Amino acid sequence: MNNRPSVEVCFTPNLFPLHMDNAEFVVVIDVLRATSAICTAFHNGIDKVIPVSTVEEALEYKKKGYLVAAERKGQIVPGFEFGNSPYSYMNKNLKGQTLVITTTNGTKAFHTASQAKEVIIGSLLNLDAVSSFLKKQNKNVLLLASGWQNKFCLEDTICAGAIADQLLSSGDFVCDQDSSIAAKYLYLSAKENYLGYLKSSSHRRRLKKLNLNEDIKYCLTPNQTDVVPIRENNYLINSK
Amino acid sequence: MNNRPSVEVCFTPNLFPLHMDNAEFVVVIDVLRATSAICTAFHNGIDKVIPVSTVEEALEYKKKGYLVAAERKGQIVPGFEFGNSPYSYMNKNLKGQTLVITTTNGTKAFHTASQAKEVIIGSLLNLDAVSSFLKKQNKNVLLLASGWQNKFCLEDTICAGAIADQLLSSGDFVCDQDSSIAAKYLYLSAKENYLGYLKSSSHRRRLKKLNLNEDIKYCLTPNQTDVVPIRENNYLINSK
Repeated sequence: MNNRPSVEVCFTPNLFPLHMDNAEFVVVIDVLRATSAICTAFHNGIDKVIPVSTVEEALEYKKKGYLVAAERKGQIVPGFEFGNSPYSYMNKNLKGQTLVITTTNGTKAFHTASQAKEVIIGSLLNLDAVSSFLKKQNKNVLLLASGWQNKFCLEDTICAGAIADQLLSSGDFVCDQDSSIAAKYLYLSAKENYLGYLKSSSHRRRLKKLNLNEDIKYCLTPNQTDVVPIRENNYLINSK
Repeated sequence: MNNRPSVEVCFTPNLFPLHMDNAEFVVVIDVLRATSAICTAFHNGIDKVIPVSTVEEALEYKKKGYLVAAERKGQIVPGFEFGNSPYSYMNKNLKGQTLVITTTNGTKAFHTASQAKEVIIGSLLNLDAVSSFLKKQNKNVLLLASGWQNKFCLEDTICAGAIADQLLSSGDFVCDQDSSIAAKYLYLSAKENYLGYLKSSSHRRRLKKLNLNEDIKYCLTPNQTDVVPIRENNYLINSK
């Protein structure tokens, strides 16, 4: 019983060094909207996603003819075609292509996790798929919330709490950290009505101001896809 | 209405730089047990508390004849008479004395807050007193949870959520950060039964192993005192 793997939650990328020691699989979560967009892109047939940290790197790829998404503070960076609205990726013409993406928080978290042995991408959209995948691995899991500019954010924590709850309920995982317990409690209070629960959250207010309510609603709808994006070298592929 | 002061929650000392800009009053919270012990000491007539960061500093004061408390990882440091059990300070012989104290997390948080204009000490023991005090100030408040070795901890967050809830319920304060919203949600779920809610928290488990259940129960009992310790120079006095 003591050999059961752990599932823990890290609230923001700058707390990652305190939590990473034991982690074998890191799940990067940015519900609004980077990891939701990445999951949607794979669901619609994108072959490979290359997360990059800076707009400059993204621009280099654009010059080379890649499909490139660049978002900062909720908006598409001028000069780019895509941001991180999941709806942009609901397009069958993208099938088989490679997408390069840079976002305010999500790709930063992905690079923070670069030291981890294995990295996968989680969101509410692929909640059950991620949980099933992790249950099969039997490894220590760290759920890394991307947060907002290194601050705690509610929607990523709730998604982490949802994954933690599924793994802990299986009886095959244990958790030790208060952050994990809190994430689970927050998820349990939120699960009946994510949209209502998050009505006062700062990021939802931020995106609502940008008229992104449809994006928010979609990103808060669990289990729209069974993709599990996984890191291979410096890019992501669908694990299936 | 837009000029109402803010009340925000910072989960751990290492996130303080992200939250401090706007703060006028910082409330340092270490429910298990440093700030609970400090409140109890003032309630029992201690005149002044000097928080110090290291055991070496504490030892210097001890040599000079001061009353000195030193705790690390839940236990009294060998060679010192006091740790941070509130029960140690329920002693009328301490009246009028100065107490020097160093603890694992609480005094670290106090020193992290040193750049703030004003610093007060909060715990569940002086919950209503702290809230009333802050309501009178009409200033921006930052509730700083001490955490456990820079990690999030549940009991400090719940105490912060309780203070935030009282200030927000008055209608005289606003909050903007998701950490504050989450702390309030966690408090609202916990308030009917703190002990039950915290049964799986890591610090409660840690102290229980050390047979400190009575301390835990006491520290989780709101409103045992109306003291509000406040920083003056590099020490604390009771504001009343």
